[in-house]
Amino acid sequence: MGYFRENIEKMTGYAPGFQPNEIDIIKLNTNENPYPPSPKVLESLAKINAKNLRKYPEIKGDTFRRTAAEVFGLKPENFICTNGGDDFLTICIRAFCDKNAALAYPVPTYSLYPILAQLQNCPTVKIPFDDEFNLPAKLASIGAALTIVCNPNAPSGTFVQVEEIAELAGEIKGVLLIDEAYVNFADSSCIGLIKDFDNVIILRSMSKGYSLAGIRFGFGIASENLIAGLMKVKDSYNVDAIAITAATAAIKDRDYFKANVEKIKAERSRLSAELAELGFFVYPSQANFVLAKNDAKNIKAIDIYQKLKEQNIYIRYWAEPGLKDKLRITVGTADENDRLITVLKKIMTKTKE
Amino acid sequence: MGYFRENIEKMTGYAPGFQPNEIDIIKLNTNENPYPPSPKVLESLAKINAKNLRKYPEIKGDTFRRTAAEVFGLKPENFICTNGGDDFLTICIRAFCDKNAALAYPVPTYSLYPILAQLQNCPTVKIPFDDEFNLPAKLASIGAALTIVCNPNAPSGTFVQVEEIAELAGEIKGVLLIDEAYVNFADSSCIGLIKDFDNVIILRSMSKGYSLAGIRFGFGIASENLIAGLMKVKDSYNVDAIAITAATAAIKDRDYFKANVEKIKAERSRLSAELAELGFFVYPSQANFVLAKNDAKNIKAIDIYQKLKEQNIYIRYWAEPGLKDKLRITVGTADENDRLITVLKKIMTKTKE
Repeated sequence: MGYFRENIEKMTGYAPGFQPNEIDIIKLNTNENPYPPSPKVLESLAKINAKNLRKYPEIKGDTFRRTAAEVFGLKPENFICTNGGDDFLTICIRAFCDKNAALAYPVPTYSLYPILAQLQNCPTVKIPFDDEFNLPAKLASIGAALTIVCNPNAPSGTFVQVEEIAELAGEIKGVLLIDEAYVNFADSSCIGLIKDFDNVIILRSMSKGYSLAGIRFGFGIASENLIAGLMKVKDSYNVDAIAITAATAAIKDRDYFKANVEKIKAERSRLSAELAELGFFVYPSQANFVLAKNDAKNIKAIDIYQKLKEQNIYIRYWAEPGLKDKLRITVGTADENDRLITVLKKIMTKTKE
Repeated sequence: MGYFRENIEKMTGYAPGFQPNEIDIIKLNTNENPYPPSPKVLESLAKINAKNLRKYPEIKGDTFRRTAAEVFGLKPENFICTNGGDDFLTICIRAFCDKNAALAYPVPTYSLYPILAQLQNCPTVKIPFDDEFNLPAKLASIGAALTIVCNPNAPSGTFVQVEEIAELAGEIKGVLLIDEAYVNFADSSCIGLIKDFDNVIILRSMSKGYSLAGIRFGFGIASENLIAGLMKVKDSYNVDAIAITAATAAIKDRDYFKANVEKIKAERSRLSAELAELGFFVYPSQANFVLAKNDAKNIKAIDIYQKLKEQNIYIRYWAEPGLKDKLRITVGTADENDRLITVLKKIMTKTKE
């Protein structure tokens, strides 16, 4: 073609988890919440009228920002609404990184980061986690313009303690973005750090903890100064009127949210135990998925993944360093997890025969 | 702060038209459609269920792409869905422009283009239109990586004939993006050119012609090759499930769409005639707004804008070269246009006294 920038021409683009259309499948591959969103969300959508549709939405999603400020005990000016968490990642990488301003992050982690760096044509510094997914000390001394720590990390589900993140924030010169897309399932959060550090930004998502992956709504939390700068980079109307309405209704309903999250945590414990019983090493997860290391001698992780797929059970596998012997499994409903374990048992037993 | 890239630090960000909250105002400042979207849209939204919300949307919005392909007699592979037309502009500028690959466009035009160029940190070449908003011949020889022609142009409403655009497409070496956000109100379109030119891309929006500014849905149309490249640059889930549903329902309902557009065209003619009678020079508009040049000696365009605002009538004014003596007015409902003309008459008469 020749029309595209060289970095775009060369790159392959992000590969999202498969989104099948069939009804009779068990979908544990893209970390969606298996439970519906708060009933308040559908109630709020029923009130959407023609005027909401024909007029431009709020430029900054202020209805959501005000509500989030109450929920988190912060100011509306500490929030930026985005078209999913991915939009926020794009905004940050465009705001801070370029050819001379690197992006750094520990690996393995969310596979979108390197794609966004390729798009921005900025250097990346990838520091491997150790076997237990501890935060690499080396991150502090890289001098990157932007450092991202996904916490809980994807695809490991592991959590770096807030104190360690705070230490890193104080050590680095650039911006530290904590990708908390999965933090709703964790025991703590780094949100408090934005008061102590002017270089800390928190990413949140409504997709997982609030069962709203379909509406694309994420948000960033940081000092007023950082948020004001990031506002310049976002599209003028980046979140739509319906998404603002739905996200506001969802974040308001604290009781539903807490109950939903507790159900997933309980299933996560059960699923982890069952997988351990089948011989997998399961990383301690603070997310709505688990990473299971396959220690079986006679079957490879990729073959387990394939055999599950043949049975219409979709999980995630990456043929990448540090992940080749592992499987990432979203925590489903009790029924879905039962079915997964039943089929897995057959696969693993057959292997032993 | 010091954390942001220099180009971001220096820029001021895009200034969208004011979005007032009051109910008792006449809003003719951001080119929204004054009529509701097709009733099929609200019907389709009533069917949205918890599953649509909790699961990720279609990665490429295939439901919409298939429907659009039928409507326009093209293939689904000729379409890319975007989070409003602005998202598509961002995608194209990121795909084709950088420090060594310029963006060119005639001015005055859509004020977002220079902002997106600042974000991308690419050079811009701005060629002034003549007084009649004819396409500047010079555009052909600039050697820009991306040339944008907004057609109908904003804020002039004027239309460059398809033959002239075709000639430009054949002459330039880079990509020619025709921003057809307002083309639904024009007599013709450049969509046919994508079959003849592998460097032509069409931008369309559901905001104006389909009364769906609130849901943020635009799309690009081009050769399969160009679309495949642009797909790499878009966010993985850039359009949400509800927006896909609403946009698909709207674009399917051809009868409603045509009737809606005809009503606006009729009001556009009437509004243009009334403004001319008040002494304004009105540029021939093919959009859902008109640009009116103020020829009155005793009052400035900005003062007319201010006096209308005091009466709760919002139109758009830019203190910029070529626009200081002009006002852009969105075509409203018959009632809104009547009210505007009544108030304008008083403002202009008082001036003469």
